[in-house]
Amino acid sequence: MLGANPAMRRGWLAHNTGAVLDAVGQTAFTPEQVRGSIENLVGAIHVPLGIAGPILVNGEHAGGSYYVPFATTEGTLVTTYQYGMRAITEAGGANTYVVADSLDIAPCFVVGDTRAALALARWLREHLDELAAIAAETTAHGRLTDIQPLVFGRRVFARCLFDTGDAMGLNMVNLAVDRMCARVREATGCERHYLRCNYSSDKKPAAINLFRPYGKEVAVDLTLPADVVERHLGISSRALMDCAATGRLGSMQAGALGVNAHFANGLAAIYIACGQDVAQVVNASIGFLDMELLDDGGLYVAARLPNLVVGTVGGGTQLPTQRECLELMDCHGDGTARRFAEIVAATLVAGELGILAALADGRFIEAHRQNRLLAARGTPALKP
Amino acid sequence: MLGANPAMRRGWLAHNTGAVLDAVGQTAFTPEQVRGSIENLVGAIHVPLGIAGPILVNGEHAGGSYYVPFATTEGTLVTTYQYGMRAITEAGGANTYVVADSLDIAPCFVVGDTRAALALARWLREHLDELAAIAAETTAHGRLTDIQPLVFGRRVFARCLFDTGDAMGLNMVNLAVDRMCARVREATGCERHYLRCNYSSDKKPAAINLFRPYGKEVAVDLTLPADVVERHLGISSRALMDCAATGRLGSMQAGALGVNAHFANGLAAIYIACGQDVAQVVNASIGFLDMELLDDGGLYVAARLPNLVVGTVGGGTQLPTQRECLELMDCHGDGTARRFAEIVAATLVAGELGILAALADGRFIEAHRQNRLLAARGTPALKP
Amino acid sequence: MLGANPAMRRGWLAHNTGAVLDAVGQTAFTPEQVRGSIENLVGAIHVPLGIAGPILVNGEHAGGSYYVPFATTEGTLVTTYQYGMRAITEAGGANTYVVADSLDIAPCFVVGDTRAALALARWLREHLDELAAIAAETTAHGRLTDIQPLVFGRRVFARCLFDTGDAMGLNMVNLAVDRMCARVREATGCERHYLRCNYSSDKKPAAINLFRPYGKEVAVDLTLPADVVERHLGISSRALMDCAATGRLGSMQAGALGVNAHFANGLAAIYIACGQDVAQVVNASIGFLDMELLDDGGLYVAARLPNLVVGTVGGGTQLPTQRECLELMDCHGDGTARRFAEIVAATLVAGELGILAALADGRFIEAHRQNRLLAARGTPALKP
Amino acid sequence: MLGANPAMRRGWLAHNTGAVLDAVGQTAFTPEQVRGSIENLVGAIHVPLGIAGPILVNGEHAGGSYYVPFATTEGTLVTTYQYGMRAITEAGGANTYVVADSLDIAPCFVVGDTRAALALARWLREHLDELAAIAAETTAHGRLTDIQPLVFGRRVFARCLFDTGDAMGLNMVNLAVDRMCARVREATGCERHYLRCNYSSDKKPAAINLFRPYGKEVAVDLTLPADVVERHLGISSRALMDCAATGRLGSMQAGALGVNAHFANGLAAIYIACGQDVAQVVNASIGFLDMELLDDGGLYVAARLPNLVVGTVGGGTQLPTQRECLELMDCHGDGTARRFAEIVAATLVAGELGILAALADGRFIEAHRQNRLLAARGTPALKP
Repeated sequence: MLGANPAMRRGWLAHNTGAVLDAVGQTAFTPEQVRGSIENLVGAIHVPLGIAGPILVNGEHAGGSYYVPFATTEGTLVTTYQYGMRAITEAGGANTYVVADSLDIAPCFVVGDTRAALALARWLREHLDELAAIAAETTAHGRLTDIQPLVFGRRVFARCLFDTGDAMGLNMVNLAVDRMCARVREATGCERHYLRCNYSSDKKPAAINLFRPYGKEVAVDLTLPADVVERHLGISSRALMDCAATGRLGSMQAGALGVNAHFANGLAAIYIACGQDVAQVVNASIGFLDMELLDDGGLYVAARLPNLVVGTVGGGTQLPTQRECLELMDCHGDGTARRFAEIVAATLVAGELGILAALADGRFIEAHRQNRLLAARGTPALKP
Repeated sequence: MLGANPAMRRGWLAHNTGAVLDAVGQTAFTPEQVRGSIENLVGAIHVPLGIAGPILVNGEHAGGSYYVPFATTEGTLVTTYQYGMRAITEAGGANTYVVADSLDIAPCFVVGDTRAALALARWLREHLDELAAIAAETTAHGRLTDIQPLVFGRRVFARCLFDTGDAMGLNMVNLAVDRMCARVREATGCERHYLRCNYSSDKKPAAINLFRPYGKEVAVDLTLPADVVERHLGISSRALMDCAATGRLGSMQAGALGVNAHFANGLAAIYIACGQDVAQVVNASIGFLDMELLDDGGLYVAARLPNLVVGTVGGGTQLPTQRECLELMDCHGDGTARRFAEIVAATLVAGELGILAALADGRFIEAHRQNRLLAARGTPALKP
Repeated sequence: MLGANPAMRRGWLAHNTGAVLDAVGQTAFTPEQVRGSIENLVGAIHVPLGIAGPILVNGEHAGGSYYVPFATTEGTLVTTYQYGMRAITEAGGANTYVVADSLDIAPCFVVGDTRAALALARWLREHLDELAAIAAETTAHGRLTDIQPLVFGRRVFARCLFDTGDAMGLNMVNLAVDRMCARVREATGCERHYLRCNYSSDKKPAAINLFRPYGKEVAVDLTLPADVVERHLGISSRALMDCAATGRLGSMQAGALGVNAHFANGLAAIYIACGQDVAQVVNASIGFLDMELLDDGGLYVAARLPNLVVGTVGGGTQLPTQRECLELMDCHGDGTARRFAEIVAATLVAGELGILAALADGRFIEAHRQNRLLAARGTPALKP
Repeated sequence: MLGANPAMRRGWLAHNTGAVLDAVGQTAFTPEQVRGSIENLVGAIHVPLGIAGPILVNGEHAGGSYYVPFATTEGTLVTTYQYGMRAITEAGGANTYVVADSLDIAPCFVVGDTRAALALARWLREHLDELAAIAAETTAHGRLTDIQPLVFGRRVFARCLFDTGDAMGLNMVNLAVDRMCARVREATGCERHYLRCNYSSDKKPAAINLFRPYGKEVAVDLTLPADVVERHLGISSRALMDCAATGRLGSMQAGALGVNAHFANGLAAIYIACGQDVAQVVNASIGFLDMELLDDGGLYVAARLPNLVVGTVGGGTQLPTQRECLELMDCHGDGTARRFAEIVAATLVAGELGILAALADGRFIEAHRQNRLLAARGTPALKP
């Protein structure tokens, strides 16, 4: 099928399987626009797009009110975030901080024994500058910042940390480290290595994701006055707090990595909308939401999101629909990745407030049912 | 914005933010078709769709060759799966088994103390039939099969297990358990409960996902003859095995839940294509891939996927583009969910073979680069 | 060294290494008394023994006030437990419940492929009675209650659950399952199996220890009135609660299995004192302690200890000093294992209260220092 | 009971409980010798002591053959280690490396919000030298080497890392950090802190124990020629390897922290014998054992023990029986802690070989039975 185009492939599949592929033929992009992003292209999946907002974010990189796009087919999801956004906005906004910004990949070098592995680990630490220079030849935007080797048996798992700028950076670091590995083998005589070995746990849930930042580590906090909780979440602070406490106990009993109700829901919907690498929802959704009841009846709410892997240049961010979503938040292109991370983080906190409120007063099912009615009428949610 | 339609909302957003929302206006669905699946609808995100296949599956529910749709913007992803599919097909196909099929949610009942909690847990176990009858009033397709309470302090975390048929089932079990909870409160005098409390760990990575099936638990195995490995994966069995062994060590060092290279990649792409709940990639991707070198130089490959949450009726599966993808695999509608689960599971194994082969011989980067060239020309991958 | 006795071995070692082994020559037991419990006997280690108490326990099996023995060399440990015991006793005692009682071991059967493994798993479930009868031939006290097989690839990890009565039961279940495995191989033609394969996680920390009872699962709860907290723990309920909440956050950030401050401290000391299998502190210490501030200023305290592996017959419990410690709590011999488990569990809760109180008001270091002074004078702790 | 001595306490307990405490009255130490190590002293527990060895260790700190003391009541344990020791010794010894040496505790500072927490974290990093000077005032042997703060909400979990020399160091770092905290509060105005908050996970199993060294991180490796495996472990390399592979799969299925068969057994027995803090077996036993089958039929065996917390001065190491055990290995007093760590690590590897060999050929039960016979006759194990 050399030279095949999407239409020819759809025809060929229809001919061979009897299945019709018509709807997927409508694409907002040209084959040229997705070259390098997909193979065996046959068309596009259309994922419904809804908007929630505004959410007021007081960040170091995001400042102001934002409308956030969600691509999802899960009813009530947008509204759940919407409720939390309103409470946050009424409370004066969510404070956000990009605490760390780093991506890593860990090639594994296999040598003869532990003695040789320890020597290779030492070599890596001693040649950081040289290796950083090699990495720099492959990318103008990324920068090797450290190598942290772990030795087990005759293997060196060499965590290589990078500053990746506004790119998500996975391709960038793969390429840079591939070159670095060639140099390591040449210099040390190591005869076997693997570019990746699961130790970075990209797209895989692992305990390491609790400890070292992967992508942006974002911290969020805010104080919700008692009356904002009552008015906009429809419940008392104490009741919301008790619900959160129960969820925390549930997470602990389940042996969860992190504690949150549904970070993954908002992340998946925003990642699809904004051309992110959706599989990274797996690690990006590992994080913590905690709540304290204050003496004045308000709530102190805080989140820690150590693995927010996002990018605002390259890859899926260039496609027409995805780009529009990023631009809606002023998050497309150079210098916007941290802003995007802060908006996402604040939004995830909104989603927690929304779902905890629904669970706390038993409205969860009612919300789902009512929402469908609202959806049928067009909800008043978007315009505050 | 009562009565608003997507175009009006796009206009309103453009007016208020200055951002243009044009491309997202093209939708393969009507607003009526997504009613109940999204709120504040403004249009659609177009995700590039590629096809890999065929993959030969020898399952209890899937039997034959399948073409599998991937919606992604990650270059090389489709090809990576394609390579593995070819090796599997040449080896005679992947054997697949739906080992278990169950969805659960765990409401939490809060009572006065541990004594009362233990009594309530006993009550639940003794009234399983009565509660099953209540659940049955809410759904024709789902069926309560067991309640397994865990007591901690004055809380009962009551895992309620369901057979959900071909529906993914989350809404179904939410609704059924909501009613059951009302009965529990009435009968026991319990004054506080939460419908969900994180203990089921839906869309959250938790150790519990290793132990109890959530959705379909699918087992896959196959034997790859040495020459198939050489010819179709371009590497020796021993080298592939060594690469897998290193990844296993890397996963263990990272404290991973499960051991696999990138289940999440294929899952995310297929879930988007097929209208699944994408956030469930978080739990669905927790699983194991293992490989043994056989005396004859072949490889025995096995996977355990305990959390494959899928559905082939309702929700996003009804939308035009998503439905076409399911139909391409003969997996739309009643009686097809287990077939779909088996095809997905076999495909994930293909993806592991593809990426391990690329990592094992250092082709990983080259594959990414070359693939872009191929992609530009139209890869020959689809047509075997 | 056939026929060697401890003195001869000490002499031989002294001759060969130059090291003197004199103090260890004093033993409260005869070589005959430890036959089967140790090899290459040279003497005894003397571990200092302190007593804390009384602690009031309102259990199903333990009822009344108990003095608890601790063998330790960690200063302040006994006193820390002592403080908590007094608070508990003043509050009316700790309520304890043996929620479950089961020990399991998981042999692994290796067959040809997944199909065969699923068949073997089915065979096991269908022949539970026959296997239980075989197990019964090996022990009068233990009883096979269930087999729960997990299949991965061509392996069946067959969790075999036992009621072990008052014995800790590890040897008992090893022996019973060894016989059962012989029958399985004979009946199914399985050619390879391992009696143990880590899946039971005996003496190893694993997530599975959160979910299935191993040994006794004990629940504890009690309410501490505000004035008892103030008077006996020297701090306000709120301050104690805040300290516990911080520890919970710390545990979560560390990716801990369970949440507690130092269950392992008390367990190790009691296990040594009472002739238990000390390595099982690893799993037995996995558990949860939680605290809620009540409206009246009191504290509701609850613990869940799912892995309390204990025995009151056989093994180290027969040695003179260990036996005296068990008898001090009326926990030696048949019918006392659950009582012992309840006393231990209540004691661990006391230890949590003691250490949290010390941490909460910054007395931790002072307590350690002062304690040494008290120790020098003989603390008034023992006699209430 | 001011002024009470052990005998008076035993009498008082006998009077009040009716239980006799006679055997425990025999102590190899005087009350003065255990002052500061225990409170409410009533006597001693006598734990049977056996010796295994010699084991040949080729370490950086340990070089030569060692006899290792085990205090245990678990029959066959000593012999299991003995078998592995012999194989290791015949193979030319185990190579050991102290890869890292550090102890940490993590006080938690609670401030007003995330902004203030980030500021305090910055302050800590900027005042490392000042805080190190304060720490130095409290100890001549310990040294603060780094502070690594983690911010979540309004809390700073401040990991403080120390070099503790030959002391185990827990008391040392508690004291040093207590002083440091006072300075932090004074300088920053922070009004609440806790000296410990579970984040260091001392004596608690947590994922963090996989990543950062706690105590000594020791690496071990060795190559076992095929004939040594056959002759001294009574089994083929391939069979031993297969058994290890199954255990690895079992550990992974159980969600284990680390992969090993029974590190905890040897650790508990040696820790009791050598006056270590026995509760630390919980974290010290978290580690990895891996095995590779070599082309020549031999086995490459490697271990990673990242949390070997040991001390050879202070605490229980000063008591007569414990001191004799340390001196038997030339590990008592200054300059010996790393040697001790290496011997322990090599011994744990021996224990893995011993138990895997017994499991691999089905001898496990037979070994236990036969061992009892051998024990009755005096095993020939000690003298090679």
